[in-house]
Amino acid sequence: MAEQKPKKSSLAAKKKDYNKLALALHKKLKGNLAVVSKGKLETRDEWSTMYSPGVGAVSSHLAKNPKDAREYTIKKNTVAVISDGSAVLGLGNLGAVPALPVMEGKCAIFKEMAGVDAFPIVLDTQDPEEIISVVKAIAPTFGGINLEDIAAPHCFTIEERLKKELSIPVMHDDQHGTAIVVTAGLLNAAKVVGKKFESLRVVVQGAGAAGRAVTLLLLKAGITDIIVCDSKGAIYAGRKDLSGYKKELASITNQEKLQGDVLSVVAEADVLIGLSGPGTVASAHIEKMAKDAIVFALANPIPEIMPEDAKRAGAAVVATGRSDYANQVNNSLAFPGIFRGALDRNVTSITDDMKLAAAKKLAALVKKPTAEEVIPHVMTPGLVKAVASVIK
Amino acid sequence: MAEQKPKKSSLAAKKKDYNKLALALHKKLKGNLAVVSKGKLETRDEWSTMYSPGVGAVSSHLAKNPKDAREYTIKKNTVAVISDGSAVLGLGNLGAVPALPVMEGKCAIFKEMAGVDAFPIVLDTQDPEEIISVVKAIAPTFGGINLEDIAAPHCFTIEERLKKELSIPVMHDDQHGTAIVVTAGLLNAAKVVGKKFESLRVVVQGAGAAGRAVTLLLLKAGITDIIVCDSKGAIYAGRKDLSGYKKELASITNQEKLQGDVLSVVAEADVLIGLSGPGTVASAHIEKMAKDAIVFALANPIPEIMPEDAKRAGAAVVATGRSDYANQVNNSLAFPGIFRGALDRNVTSITDDMKLAAAKKLAALVKKPTAEEVIPHVMTPGLVKAVASVIK
Repeated sequence: MAEQKPKKSSLAAKKKDYNKLALALHKKLKGNLAVVSKGKLETRDEWSTMYSPGVGAVSSHLAKNPKDAREYTIKKNTVAVISDGSAVLGLGNLGAVPALPVMEGKCAIFKEMAGVDAFPIVLDTQDPEEIISVVKAIAPTFGGINLEDIAAPHCFTIEERLKKELSIPVMHDDQHGTAIVVTAGLLNAAKVVGKKFESLRVVVQGAGAAGRAVTLLLLKAGITDIIVCDSKGAIYAGRKDLSGYKKELASITNQEKLQGDVLSVVAEADVLIGLSGPGTVASAHIEKMAKDAIVFALANPIPEIMPEDAKRAGAAVVATGRSDYANQVNNSLAFPGIFRGALDRNVTSITDDMKLAAAKKLAALVKKPTAEEVIPHVMTPGLVKAVASVIK
Repeated sequence: MAEQKPKKSSLAAKKKDYNKLALALHKKLKGNLAVVSKGKLETRDEWSTMYSPGVGAVSSHLAKNPKDAREYTIKKNTVAVISDGSAVLGLGNLGAVPALPVMEGKCAIFKEMAGVDAFPIVLDTQDPEEIISVVKAIAPTFGGINLEDIAAPHCFTIEERLKKELSIPVMHDDQHGTAIVVTAGLLNAAKVVGKKFESLRVVVQGAGAAGRAVTLLLLKAGITDIIVCDSKGAIYAGRKDLSGYKKELASITNQEKLQGDVLSVVAEADVLIGLSGPGTVASAHIEKMAKDAIVFALANPIPEIMPEDAKRAGAAVVATGRSDYANQVNNSLAFPGIFRGALDRNVTSITDDMKLAAAKKLAALVKKPTAEEVIPHVMTPGLVKAVASVIK
């Protein structure tokens, strides 16, 4: 691992530049978003039409035809981006206000990529029952709910309950956006190394929100041999300290009930998906994997292992979360199109079938996958439209 | 009252036109508001600065310096316009979705008049405790809370508690916006008729949210002789059916403990302020008032009495809520400047002193008050700036 040190510090330097730029930009803009009026208010007639008395007719119409909210109000094109700040990027539990700039950025991406009007709501509570109540209470304004940066395990309960109790689509992007893009990348990576996707042996390192969702979507996609590891090593049926969702994961993965740390269970694996922390994978891990190993090192901005090091150790395909290396696993490939499609077709729930269809659609956008291109780029023409087309 | 009939129906016809126009416009626009990104997302550097990894530096900074949210996020310039739909315009308890177009219009006015980014949140609950919890939970995104179209008496509890428990300004506009503009108009109307403001005898017809707030601000402004009437007539200390805030009103108004309906208590009053319903004041009421009566007939769009009829019966100054008559009592004269000033100066609470100062400032914008101009027009140059200047 000593060889990584200089790279880490050069990365830190690079990051620092963006830090400075970001602090300066956010201070200059005083926030990334503005709310604007679509209509003008310059004449008396405009006032009387946009507002009282004319707007009363719209209210009366909606009182009789509440479903027409999608025709007469912002509901049709508006998504709430909601966070309790309990897992802000990779920075941890910073709380509501520090989460706000991240949510603003997400809303900017929603608008710039998919024309969705997204508004950030950061919550001064981390109690899951209270979060559920609050989101349900504010839901009538919105056509969709994007949950963001909410830590496991609360994120599972919150999303599951809101999906059941609201009639608009609810998606926790840290789970499903990541799962969709990872699955897309893995579909193409399997082709690149000439292995059958369904037969891949996969180790998922990290059993948080993204680790669980990636595992579930890969299972849905037909992979059967998955071992999930948390900080204590492989999760297996019967491990004494498991509870809740990890117990559930144990029951549907690791059929051989392998025990031990990542280094031991990664032997002969075809795929290692890192969803844990910077620098936690060494050359030794890759060297133990099967030939033509696929390594997705997704801790961001500093991956589990740097792509150069993974390749030197024998990896055939490497993906990270970074924009300055090939194969960026970027949630922005998925969520704008997912919500665009859902809003356009009044889809009330993002199903597992839709997530898998989105992953396949994303994979298919790469016409000739290579080791350097298993995932489309966020600027790919027609990207949002393609993803949106399968949300139906 | 028979003479009002043709006018009412011609009014209805006029209203119908705005209804049609409003339905068409709202359907065409699909809501009045858009959320836009202030920064561009066209290059990799812009992505890394607006969003990850750069935005992480902003989050880390805010975790250490939460007060800097006003410098680095949308908080500084963003107001929530919140309604439970329990008193939508004069249409009654229509609920959340039908309230949304009204809140959108309000947000459009905030932006067009005062450059404030306002976002509508309509609530799927009318339980005051739940509303208080929800607003507190979503508050971190916002620099101010404008409560709107929430019925009495819940609106009083909700506003009072939120003012205490949040450190950003909270104002229920149906109460205080109305009170400020009415007080402004009355300051000038007194001058027009040559009566001393503090000595005016005032009858307030309507004891809802606006009626209570108007009464309290007029008392604060120095008027001592006020009689408030609800649908059962004058409110007086000892009236058997009074409870809650009406009991409180009884204790600070109507020192003579007058009883009876509006028609009987309006005798020799200098001012009648109608905050009740269409066509509820007749010529007979005005004829019983003191010479040079001032009549504010604020039910909207159809006032308690039409201006022509009020004048024919002897009123010297008449104001309504309508834009097609002189002296429009329009909340938009107050709320944009109030919040503009509060946001610009990080004012944490809109005090009674500020409200009175705003009323005086508004009144002073009319250089030479006449019977046809006791209130400035919403297009008056410098209006927002003038009101904002006293919020400090």
